[in-house]
Amino acid sequence: MRTASQGVTECNTSSANIAVNPYKADFPLLAANPELAFLDSAATAQRPHAVLDTQRAFYETMNANALRGLYRLSVEATEAIEAARARIARFIGAPAGRDIVFTRNASEALNLVARSFAPTVLEPGDEVCLTIMEHHSNLIPWQQACRATGAHLIYMYPNEDGVITPEEMDAKIGPRTKIVAVAHVSNVLGIENPVCALADRVHTRGGYLVVDGAQSVPHMPVDVQKLGADFFTFSAHKALGPFGIGVLWGRTELLDAMPPFLTGGEMISSVTETDAVWAPVPEKFEAGTQDAAGIVATAAALDYLEDIGWEALQSREHALVHTAMERLTALPYVHLIGHPDPAQHHGAISFNVDGIHPHDVASILDEQNVAIRAGHHCAQPLLAWLDVESCCRASLTFYNDEADINALVEGLETVWRTFNG
Amino acid sequence: MRTASQGVTECNTSSANIAVNPYKADFPLLAANPELAFLDSAATAQRPHAVLDTQRAFYETMNANALRGLYRLSVEATEAIEAARARIARFIGAPAGRDIVFTRNASEALNLVARSFAPTVLEPGDEVCLTIMEHHSNLIPWQQACRATGAHLIYMYPNEDGVITPEEMDAKIGPRTKIVAVAHVSNVLGIENPVCALADRVHTRGGYLVVDGAQSVPHMPVDVQKLGADFFTFSAHKALGPFGIGVLWGRTELLDAMPPFLTGGEMISSVTETDAVWAPVPEKFEAGTQDAAGIVATAAALDYLEDIGWEALQSREHALVHTAMERLTALPYVHLIGHPDPAQHHGAISFNVDGIHPHDVASILDEQNVAIRAGHHCAQPLLAWLDVESCCRASLTFYNDEADINALVEGLETVWRTFNG
Repeated sequence: MRTASQGVTECNTSSANIAVNPYKADFPLLAANPELAFLDSAATAQRPHAVLDTQRAFYETMNANALRGLYRLSVEATEAIEAARARIARFIGAPAGRDIVFTRNASEALNLVARSFAPTVLEPGDEVCLTIMEHHSNLIPWQQACRATGAHLIYMYPNEDGVITPEEMDAKIGPRTKIVAVAHVSNVLGIENPVCALADRVHTRGGYLVVDGAQSVPHMPVDVQKLGADFFTFSAHKALGPFGIGVLWGRTELLDAMPPFLTGGEMISSVTETDAVWAPVPEKFEAGTQDAAGIVATAAALDYLEDIGWEALQSREHALVHTAMERLTALPYVHLIGHPDPAQHHGAISFNVDGIHPHDVASILDEQNVAIRAGHHCAQPLLAWLDVESCCRASLTFYNDEADINALVEGLETVWRTFNG
Repeated sequence: MRTASQGVTECNTSSANIAVNPYKADFPLLAANPELAFLDSAATAQRPHAVLDTQRAFYETMNANALRGLYRLSVEATEAIEAARARIARFIGAPAGRDIVFTRNASEALNLVARSFAPTVLEPGDEVCLTIMEHHSNLIPWQQACRATGAHLIYMYPNEDGVITPEEMDAKIGPRTKIVAVAHVSNVLGIENPVCALADRVHTRGGYLVVDGAQSVPHMPVDVQKLGADFFTFSAHKALGPFGIGVLWGRTELLDAMPPFLTGGEMISSVTETDAVWAPVPEKFEAGTQDAAGIVATAAALDYLEDIGWEALQSREHALVHTAMERLTALPYVHLIGHPDPAQHHGAISFNVDGIHPHDVASILDEQNVAIRAGHHCAQPLLAWLDVESCCRASLTFYNDEADINALVEGLETVWRTFNG
């Protein structure tokens, strides 16, 4: 693969002034730690006051077990969940809130699709097609689904820039392809995959498209219908929301036809000693008590993002990524991974430092209050394909600023001096 | 079944003064709504400041994705999760924190056992033995497990007081019994099931005991080893903790031998294009990002309970239940369900009102700021066996007081007058 360092292209960053930071004050952890350069938002975001206030207010003003009670608090909790479904549906362009299913995290959402939907369409010899850059959460469930059904797992590999080309899609998506499951944005390369083109191809074959939006939802407007997705998942905690909330959207008729995944309370219409009749979607997929406080806080997170606005958010992120890649490229011992164009990195910049283990890089940066991630990033097959055992990743979002980039660059200079006198 | 109204026995309530309430001020929702009689804690508890403060403090001071980072915040998050495991293990008498698995809720914990453990021991013709009083979350997963393996589901029925007798256990637990799965405390009857006696019998047969502790953990000291459980589950939100956290404890050698349930990030040692090697317990069962904030808040909830102390908590609950049953028994149109001895009701008192639908009872009580639950309580097979379609349940805990009971009784008088002039 070509390294991104080989040529950082120009980008219009005029609209964003990354020297100032109007957002940091909204984030209590960042505001309390002005010396911290938090560059790991792709693992989990920091949360604004608005989200934490909403989560706490739920417990303090309407706390009850939703769906279960006839009294005011419980009815309010139920209405709050339904309002959040509608809010989330609007945010991702889904036609109806009732097709939004809450899970524990994005991993559970993908497991749900692989365990409940996949066996209804996969037969021995069928194919499930992934990219090699999938996060383990969108990879191991498909290994398991293929093992359970006798289907084969097929990988699409990117070109030297990290791009899945039309030729690769045509070569891998064939008459036996029943499911294509793909990261909307790679958590390592930061690149957006050609979801619409994949949708066209798999739908032509009569198959289905599953999109893992964990890394796209925090960075770009998403319209699941325009993308052509049949299922779309994301996690709240990467999009400024609380931990513990994953979101699954699916096409109504597919969700209706699928068997449930987890079973238990609230996902049934009736139960006898020997049998159970399932409730309609989405309750069919939501066994047990839901995290109503987390769900309403998720809606508050999306409100916060939308209040900033995609134009402001994206121009700032692009300016941050452009500046960071430019500065890192100037360090001869730093080797960027992925596309040379910063516009193709949606927040994530992965790299390695000549002869220094990524864990050492991260540890020395930590001593300088720079938080990056090092390791396999839950994408071991991609790293094996890239022929690196592990790598560093700095992930940027709108609440970062130029000072964070300066801290990263100065930190890497210290890392280099530590190992090379 | 005999109705509890037929004889409320005496109980020593001298140590608790339920006319005063030293706890209400700790619970922001209760403090802000002094007119509310919240009698639905068996569905979900209210949360004390200490829990909400801990949850928020996590996001404000150490928020990062645990396990994934090498920097300070992430290391702190990881350590906080491990400390919470140890704390929870101590609370339920488990030998080691590493055998505590975090799930989304108790339902997921029971699904995990039914989906990952049960198929490793069940063969066609084997038997899974439940009580008829199981919550759907400890019932439907076993219907599914039996269907998947060819095992049979066997029910134990209580006597007229709601007691599973030794004779019933002997009649139902036989040479083909591989799993007994039982509620420690019934969410409808409030009765404690004879878990130790069940453990003896199923272990003699070479089988395993799964205990659903959702309704016991908030009300009594639990020691999973003394109980003889092989698996034990509970949910944080019923024990003053946040939504979104279920707990599974299992015997080390059983958890070690089981395949994972959900797959994805952080539950692997290594992944290739075609295969994956699982991480050790507990990570093997914890795919994706964990709700670290919820986990540390769960530990804070158990701290709060332990600070009150079981003696104070139980004597107060017994006094509340005794008084409530005595007062309800005095209403000739109210028919209590379950054991006549208040000491056998761990918080839960179910009842019906002559000729008035439970939903109407609950709605009219709600107008008087009394929150109870009405319906099938996710226990339809029990209600069918009791020959009632639905019932009312008032559930009491230590933060209730005599005023709540007065409000319930006066509310029921209003209900009766509303329908009977």
